[in-house]
Amino acid sequence: MLSFECDYNVGAHPKLLQRLLETNLVRQSGYGADEYTASAKEKIRAACGDPEADVFFLAGGTQTNQVVIDTCLSSVEGVISADTGHINAHEAGAVEFTGHKIIAIPHDCGKLRAADVEACIETIITDENVDHLVRPGMVYISHPTEYGTLYTKAELTALSSVCRKHGIKLFMDGARLGYGLESSGTDVTLRDVTELCDAFYIGGTKVGALCGEAVVFPRGGAPKYFFTAVKQHGALLAKGRLIGIQFDTLFTDGLYFEISRKAIRAADRMREILKSAGYRFHIETVTNQIFVILTPEEYDTLGRKIKFGFWERLSDGNIVVRFASSWATTDGDVDEFEACIAEM
Amino acid sequence: MLSFECDYNVGAHPKLLQRLLETNLVRQSGYGADEYTASAKEKIRAACGDPEADVFFLAGGTQTNQVVIDTCLSSVEGVISADTGHINAHEAGAVEFTGHKIIAIPHDCGKLRAADVEACIETIITDENVDHLVRPGMVYISHPTEYGTLYTKAELTALSSVCRKHGIKLFMDGARLGYGLESSGTDVTLRDVTELCDAFYIGGTKVGALCGEAVVFPRGGAPKYFFTAVKQHGALLAKGRLIGIQFDTLFTDGLYFEISRKAIRAADRMREILKSAGYRFHIETVTNQIFVILTPEEYDTLGRKIKFGFWERLSDGNIVVRFASSWATTDGDVDEFEACIAEM
Amino acid sequence: MLSFECDYNVGAHPKLLQRLLETNLVRQSGYGADEYTASAKEKIRAACGDPEADVFFLAGGTQTNQVVIDTCLSSVEGVISADTGHINAHEAGAVEFTGHKIIAIPHDCGKLRAADVEACIETIITDENVDHLVRPGMVYISHPTEYGTLYTKAELTALSSVCRKHGIKLFMDGARLGYGLESSGTDVTLRDVTELCDAFYIGGTKVGALCGEAVVFPRGGAPKYFFTAVKQHGALLAKGRLIGIQFDTLFTDGLYFEISRKAIRAADRMREILKSAGYRFHIETVTNQIFVILTPEEYDTLGRKIKFGFWERLSDGNIVVRFASSWATTDGDVDEFEACIAEM
Amino acid sequence: MLSFECDYNVGAHPKLLQRLLETNLVRQSGYGADEYTASAKEKIRAACGDPEADVFFLAGGTQTNQVVIDTCLSSVEGVISADTGHINAHEAGAVEFTGHKIIAIPHDCGKLRAADVEACIETIITDENVDHLVRPGMVYISHPTEYGTLYTKAELTALSSVCRKHGIKLFMDGARLGYGLESSGTDVTLRDVTELCDAFYIGGTKVGALCGEAVVFPRGGAPKYFFTAVKQHGALLAKGRLIGIQFDTLFTDGLYFEISRKAIRAADRMREILKSAGYRFHIETVTNQIFVILTPEEYDTLGRKIKFGFWERLSDGNIVVRFASSWATTDGDVDEFEACIAEM
Repeated sequence: MLSFECDYNVGAHPKLLQRLLETNLVRQSGYGADEYTASAKEKIRAACGDPEADVFFLAGGTQTNQVVIDTCLSSVEGVISADTGHINAHEAGAVEFTGHKIIAIPHDCGKLRAADVEACIETIITDENVDHLVRPGMVYISHPTEYGTLYTKAELTALSSVCRKHGIKLFMDGARLGYGLESSGTDVTLRDVTELCDAFYIGGTKVGALCGEAVVFPRGGAPKYFFTAVKQHGALLAKGRLIGIQFDTLFTDGLYFEISRKAIRAADRMREILKSAGYRFHIETVTNQIFVILTPEEYDTLGRKIKFGFWERLSDGNIVVRFASSWATTDGDVDEFEACIAEM
Repeated sequence: MLSFECDYNVGAHPKLLQRLLETNLVRQSGYGADEYTASAKEKIRAACGDPEADVFFLAGGTQTNQVVIDTCLSSVEGVISADTGHINAHEAGAVEFTGHKIIAIPHDCGKLRAADVEACIETIITDENVDHLVRPGMVYISHPTEYGTLYTKAELTALSSVCRKHGIKLFMDGARLGYGLESSGTDVTLRDVTELCDAFYIGGTKVGALCGEAVVFPRGGAPKYFFTAVKQHGALLAKGRLIGIQFDTLFTDGLYFEISRKAIRAADRMREILKSAGYRFHIETVTNQIFVILTPEEYDTLGRKIKFGFWERLSDGNIVVRFASSWATTDGDVDEFEACIAEM
Repeated sequence: MLSFECDYNVGAHPKLLQRLLETNLVRQSGYGADEYTASAKEKIRAACGDPEADVFFLAGGTQTNQVVIDTCLSSVEGVISADTGHINAHEAGAVEFTGHKIIAIPHDCGKLRAADVEACIETIITDENVDHLVRPGMVYISHPTEYGTLYTKAELTALSSVCRKHGIKLFMDGARLGYGLESSGTDVTLRDVTELCDAFYIGGTKVGALCGEAVVFPRGGAPKYFFTAVKQHGALLAKGRLIGIQFDTLFTDGLYFEISRKAIRAADRMREILKSAGYRFHIETVTNQIFVILTPEEYDTLGRKIKFGFWERLSDGNIVVRFASSWATTDGDVDEFEACIAEM
Repeated sequence: MLSFECDYNVGAHPKLLQRLLETNLVRQSGYGADEYTASAKEKIRAACGDPEADVFFLAGGTQTNQVVIDTCLSSVEGVISADTGHINAHEAGAVEFTGHKIIAIPHDCGKLRAADVEACIETIITDENVDHLVRPGMVYISHPTEYGTLYTKAELTALSSVCRKHGIKLFMDGARLGYGLESSGTDVTLRDVTELCDAFYIGGTKVGALCGEAVVFPRGGAPKYFFTAVKQHGALLAKGRLIGIQFDTLFTDGLYFEISRKAIRAADRMREILKSAGYRFHIETVTNQIFVILTPEEYDTLGRKIKFGFWERLSDGNIVVRFASSWATTDGDVDEFEACIAEM
């Protein structure tokens, strides 16, 4: 069945598998001390335009969020997040597990507003009982957000300014960063992200890799003993080459960006098809995720032809569903999608 | 250069890569809800002879030790381990990070003696200040141990009896379990392990896989909400298929055991070569790790021809080094090894 | 200056100090194994009407909340609380520090509604991604709440039913329990609390003691090894007698209830005085805390005569302040208060 | 019965209780913002000869060890301790509970040797796998030790030098510090402790107070947000005055030192009595704890007359017991002790 359920339901981009095959029997040191990992780090530094950036590879998104947040904060510091933020909503309490409170504030289509963040910080630090409160030590954003939306460069700059003014770190969860950077509706580049954030990760799992996220601490800003902390959190792979080879390939000849673009073009076409067919969007998105409102009947009929994700049930009884394209979505897949929609 | 440095310095067994290639574009659900993972679990249950066993897949050894120990213990319980145990010596405090004390006791060539374990438990529970002490809640053993040694079935049975008598769990770190099960010097089978332990894992990373360990809780004994705990520890892969496919392949037609046997045969030959050449062994081992005592001169000369692991410096100035074979060691590698030793 | 700032700004009720003096040089075992502590526990069991209740003494409120919540929950479980709950708002992340998420939901004058709690639980457990979510394992309420309000017996019964239906614990923070039980506006008795909750504490620090809270687990329901967990959390006093003697005195001849009643009578009189003088109440309370809306001018003028607590600034510029009576409030204090208000 | 079981089996020095009575109804702010606490801090700074010292009051020893160690270390750092150290042996894993490994090394009558500490640090930081190891971030010592022994100024200076050379903190558990400072067998002053340590605490619970330990961070060295961390660990008393008043009294006119001296004189007399009567000492001590070897018969006979502490059973069947004097031991108590021993 045609499946747009999510962006992690196939394996890896064939070039990554090919490279794993080619290098398979080359003997290399473990724990990321292999030549592929070194090369991947160098290429990521170049793509970020920051030769001093510290780069590390972890296996998955929740793990990365947990390790980065825990190592960047002192024990009395918490992290400000949209209440819809992945760390607050879908990670089984992984951040609290390491002792930190998530200071959840309302979102705007998945995004944090700089003014809200500043108000939150000000409220806490001017409270006469501030010494009895968790200190804000970091702002967590996702880009694209869980709603498929994107920050503009102006919005990101405003968030960064608030953080810097208050000596607080800005951390971007880039699980789908490629799809954000290649959206036609963005003015944010990887260099902007590097310039404006204190930590971020370039998602691999959802953008062509079997597993792996590349954590970047711009300007040599990694927490002390970060490698050891990764080990301590159980997040260090013995065969670091597995992720190193994949990212080295993704950042060779711009593959990461090219496959992200392909997913965006597919999503753009799908949006057009849905719009023409009269479907209403729950949120206007410009990335690889599309949120559409279906009647219960549409939900059933369409659900028999296309696998999509259930998102939420609205108070009027209609249902929001998510269609996600990915690097693996082919033109043929979108043609089929078009045919299905036409038949409805 | 000829390398016997460790057993995780190449990629995966070619059959695993082949299977990753073949299944690459098949759409499957994430987080381990794919058909390959289901099949792998079934095959592992069969190999263990326990149709009720709970099976989970995690990415690496330290992670597995951390998650299993933390979920099996209450907060006031600690884990008894040999002081040389991997969790005590080489995991950056991953167990303590989750709040549990390691109750370290002396080892016998890397092994725990049942009598020592019982004495340790008795000392604690009969202490008049027992309520001020960490309770022993688990015994951690590795098999093979960090020293390449193996428990006999009698020893394992004795440990299991002590644990059951005291209502304490027995957990086996099987990072190299295949090499233990296929050693000519063992009388312990996978079914014995399943029968005698409350939790153990079948190591993949060091036995043919790119990454992955199969955690087994015999007799349906997984801690409640274990899947959620895996997520909370940051240990859940979105593309669970990556590990599922590998273990499904490893447990098809006995591949796991076959490639372990190959490594053992290589190690047996290397032991014979070293013995014939007059080298002394630091510890007598029957698995894929060989510990040899070298003079500083031998260390330098041999080190120019063969990559091996530094283990420790003895008080007499001699040096203990480790040679490790693996599933990837070829007959040609051992021939070369023989030639190198002969030249010395 | 006349002070109604809070209910913990003097020492202990004189009878408690007297008893500390009388027993001072009697040799007793440490860590709560003294005869005064044993006697206090017995008296509390009697007052609760539960001869099987487990009773423990801790030093303060945040500590008690932290230890009880952490020991009652498994690592993947979180605690549902009003967003205004003390654990969520004023305890510096003490609950998250031990690894548990607070699932904060909206409040009604500081109280949780049973329907909201049930909806929260249902939303989580019926979510198709429930395995990626923190499980609700406990409901935390305060009685009186941080807003000085009280649950009715019907409300408490409804909350208890929701919890029992879902196998979730109900924990009551009774930092000011005496003031709740002796309010003229309550139909909840200590026996009701014992019957309906799975854990609660009888506050001492704010009700006559120098320090100390009595934790009660009705029907022998203390978590296993609770004493050891108290030690592990750093919460065990060597001279447990300090708290034991105080609670033994508080529960002799109903002193705890008598002094609570005295505080309530003072508060009732103060409420009457304020009402007659035309002041508006921010929240209608029936306990020892009174929340009054002042204009900025009133705030300044009254603030020169009476010490009170700043609560919050309203959007219209007016200010909410808190007056708190306590066991130590004398008739003379209230007379002076009346004179001050009259002069305004 | 005559009791020398421990040094925390009575209440407080009468002057402290008297002062609690006198100040009982004076209204003061909570959480340590009272005038008595301020005065006590000032007096402790003066006694330490360090006007810049940060001083905080906590309730008990395990709590203090836990909070200080956790706040001074980063998550990947552990604390070096004698294996007999209180944190390693008798605190129910309170340090591990907050995520830190205790790196236990052998002791010399309860003391750490600087050379052993240096060797331990060197072994770790020169290990080629150092990035997989817990980093030593602190050295924990007790003074007097759990064995009643004391560091000499030279030994303490050597430990301090090792720590400073390696950028590691030196923390002294001074639960019985008064008894150490007033021993006739010491050349270490409170100013020496202040000069040589990075953190230490002046024990109150065992030296005249109902509860309370004074934590000192010399030279303004408190960890950032230490107050908030105290709250977060559940260690902040609402009525901070309880400890403030006690320490203010203990440090008025040298009471702390005077009552410590009294305990030492009693212990010195007891040692002389035991020695004259032919008893053998298990360890030579110069503080308020005396360890004597008894035959089983002596153990029974003496145990019927005097309450003492069981320490350990020796391999020859004899038993080590502990007699502890305290500030509360009277001349009459020692006279009775003498009579009992004489009767044996």
